[in-house]
Amino acid sequence: MGALTRTVTVLGSTGSIGVSTLDLFEKSGAEVEILALTAGRNVAKLAEQALRWRPKLAVIQDEKLLPGLRDRLAGSGVHAVGGDAAVEDAAAMGADWVMSAIVGAAGLAPTLAAARKGSVIALANKESLVCAGPALLEIARQAGGGVIPVDSEHSAIFQVLQPDCRDRVARLILTASGGPFRTWTLEQMRQATPEQAVAHPNWSMGAKISIDSATMMNKGLEMVEASYLFDTPAERIDVVVHPQSVIHSLVEYQDGSTLAQLGPPDMKAPIACAWAWPDRLPWPAERLDLPRVGQLTFEAPDPQRFPAVDIARAALQAGGLTPAAMNAANEVAVAAFLDRKIGFLDIAPLVSETLSRMNGLGDRMSGAGGDALENAMMIDASARRLAADALSRHLVLH
Amino acid sequence: MGALTRTVTVLGSTGSIGVSTLDLFEKSGAEVEILALTAGRNVAKLAEQALRWRPKLAVIQDEKLLPGLRDRLAGSGVHAVGGDAAVEDAAAMGADWVMSAIVGAAGLAPTLAAARKGSVIALANKESLVCAGPALLEIARQAGGGVIPVDSEHSAIFQVLQPDCRDRVARLILTASGGPFRTWTLEQMRQATPEQAVAHPNWSMGAKISIDSATMMNKGLEMVEASYLFDTPAERIDVVVHPQSVIHSLVEYQDGSTLAQLGPPDMKAPIACAWAWPDRLPWPAERLDLPRVGQLTFEAPDPQRFPAVDIARAALQAGGLTPAAMNAANEVAVAAFLDRKIGFLDIAPLVSETLSRMNGLGDRMSGAGGDALENAMMIDASARRLAADALSRHLVLH
Repeated sequence: MGALTRTVTVLGSTGSIGVSTLDLFEKSGAEVEILALTAGRNVAKLAEQALRWRPKLAVIQDEKLLPGLRDRLAGSGVHAVGGDAAVEDAAAMGADWVMSAIVGAAGLAPTLAAARKGSVIALANKESLVCAGPALLEIARQAGGGVIPVDSEHSAIFQVLQPDCRDRVARLILTASGGPFRTWTLEQMRQATPEQAVAHPNWSMGAKISIDSATMMNKGLEMVEASYLFDTPAERIDVVVHPQSVIHSLVEYQDGSTLAQLGPPDMKAPIACAWAWPDRLPWPAERLDLPRVGQLTFEAPDPQRFPAVDIARAALQAGGLTPAAMNAANEVAVAAFLDRKIGFLDIAPLVSETLSRMNGLGDRMSGAGGDALENAMMIDASARRLAADALSRHLVLH
Repeated sequence: MGALTRTVTVLGSTGSIGVSTLDLFEKSGAEVEILALTAGRNVAKLAEQALRWRPKLAVIQDEKLLPGLRDRLAGSGVHAVGGDAAVEDAAAMGADWVMSAIVGAAGLAPTLAAARKGSVIALANKESLVCAGPALLEIARQAGGGVIPVDSEHSAIFQVLQPDCRDRVARLILTASGGPFRTWTLEQMRQATPEQAVAHPNWSMGAKISIDSATMMNKGLEMVEASYLFDTPAERIDVVVHPQSVIHSLVEYQDGSTLAQLGPPDMKAPIACAWAWPDRLPWPAERLDLPRVGQLTFEAPDPQRFPAVDIARAALQAGGLTPAAMNAANEVAVAAFLDRKIGFLDIAPLVSETLSRMNGLGDRMSGAGGDALENAMMIDASARRLAADALSRHLVLH
């Protein structure tokens, strides 16, 4: 183990980001000592990773699956544990670098635990930011750690946001693929099926995030994340539709200069950035070949067909935990759409209606005060209840 | 005069870059104290600028025009002087910031003089880099000053070249408009007239630089400048044709991430960058509107029709002052083309032939040793003589 070896914990090691993280370590020969790997339910994959990387701890969140994990790791020297508390304990081991890649709200508590220990957090778990961003960042700052974003848009902004010029930023510009319905008419979108909505043009993703791409609520959520991460008000965050997804996002400065980060669509790139920053990690990445790409195109997003961006901007402007409520309502709405209970064009109105029914509860809950996790969970639960209620009252909204 | 007031000298204040520099100071309300303004022959404009900005010195390079300047500045308190030595003296006043914007070889001596005084040099004079780049940069470094590039391509690279990651650069990628003959066939180019060649699609420029754009020798020269400025070998500098000139250049890192600077084509942007760096200067710049731009396209340059890029790469690889010889031969060739002595397609072969006749003289002259100015002048003269000789032997080469 060399002097540059860093201790690492990967939260969500068997998901797409977790697997890419370990693969990147492998491909680049990064000097790492893994303290813990955690997974939700994929015992086989977790055991395989643990046998390769020999962490101190292998944690399976679903405690019922612990005996199976123990069997597979018997005699390996890797300690197998299970349950939510065990995941949080693993996050709190004080690793130099923690990849936070658990999907969904389950990632929130472990991420906060890692932040309290001052670890550098490579943040792929969106809920940690959307539901408790200001609290998370403040906790990380106070503990002497930091948060480096791992999704491609925020990584792009992070890479071209000059520390000396933070107050010279005119706009953050998030690029959006535009999703599968970019060129559809409202009437076509009204008829859209879940199968059509999950077909993303550039990235292969799960169903929930694919629907968010189709409604462009993914950009709404990213706007919230960008606002928190880069301490930038919603009015100074724009979205540009860029179907080729080559420019991952841009920062426009007050001197008229715009900086951008470009690359092939590969999640390993932002992971590598988060790992090595402020250095860069040489690894056999695919390189951008602009003449082969040929052309990049740009359009303004259509607020009629894609109201989610404006909903998110308004939620940010309402302040407090309103964006967390928006996120919860959106999850309920997307699930209802996937269950064929509502149409595609009902998703955004259901979110809006939920936020108006919240009666300002979200904005009265500070994002930073009190217990961040409890506050976020309470707002989340309230929004889900209100969304479910709105849903039950009129099954087809639109 | 506030604590942040910087002393400034503008070398070449009546040219396009000089005028833009003073205009930028005006528009942004920058706190400047002008030590000297220098011009070649434009007495009227220089006097007007001097009366507005009240420098200590107003310098007219053509000494014959000094009486006229004195008349116009009588009673103003601005000291009027003339001649080459006076320009060099003005450059050597030790201003905090010197805009080096004299056009052509005449800019070399004053730029070196400013470098010796440790001024921060905003460098728009290309000859200083092409003919004596390594010496200039070493002199500036030793004197505690610095050189910030002012043309759009190098400014773009400068803005996205992270100081912590200089040794992680995979490629510098210069973008090129492709010039007026981008889509022409070789046969059409053979017949091209000077009038056709000076019609540049995106920037308005003088005749010499317009022809360089048409042959793409401008990119060859920029490759030389980039190699010196950013200490990067020719093999790691590429050129991509990008007709919209929106992406001004890019840096590709070894982790697969590519950073770029974008903006409307306005020389004030790189001037503002060179002025304020590492801060940014808020000024009423035109902002980039990507949806309005609509599309950006990219092509590989065609080495058959545009051999200049390969000639420049070979000159850099030959080393020493070979690029300075290339620059001199190109000036002779462009002048001959503008005089209708040779055809458009004869320009590049005349440069190549000159370099081969140099018999390695250029590469044996170190770029950094000896007296940089004398060395550069000697190589320049030799190359011009050989180019003129080659020209006289066969008037039509191609």
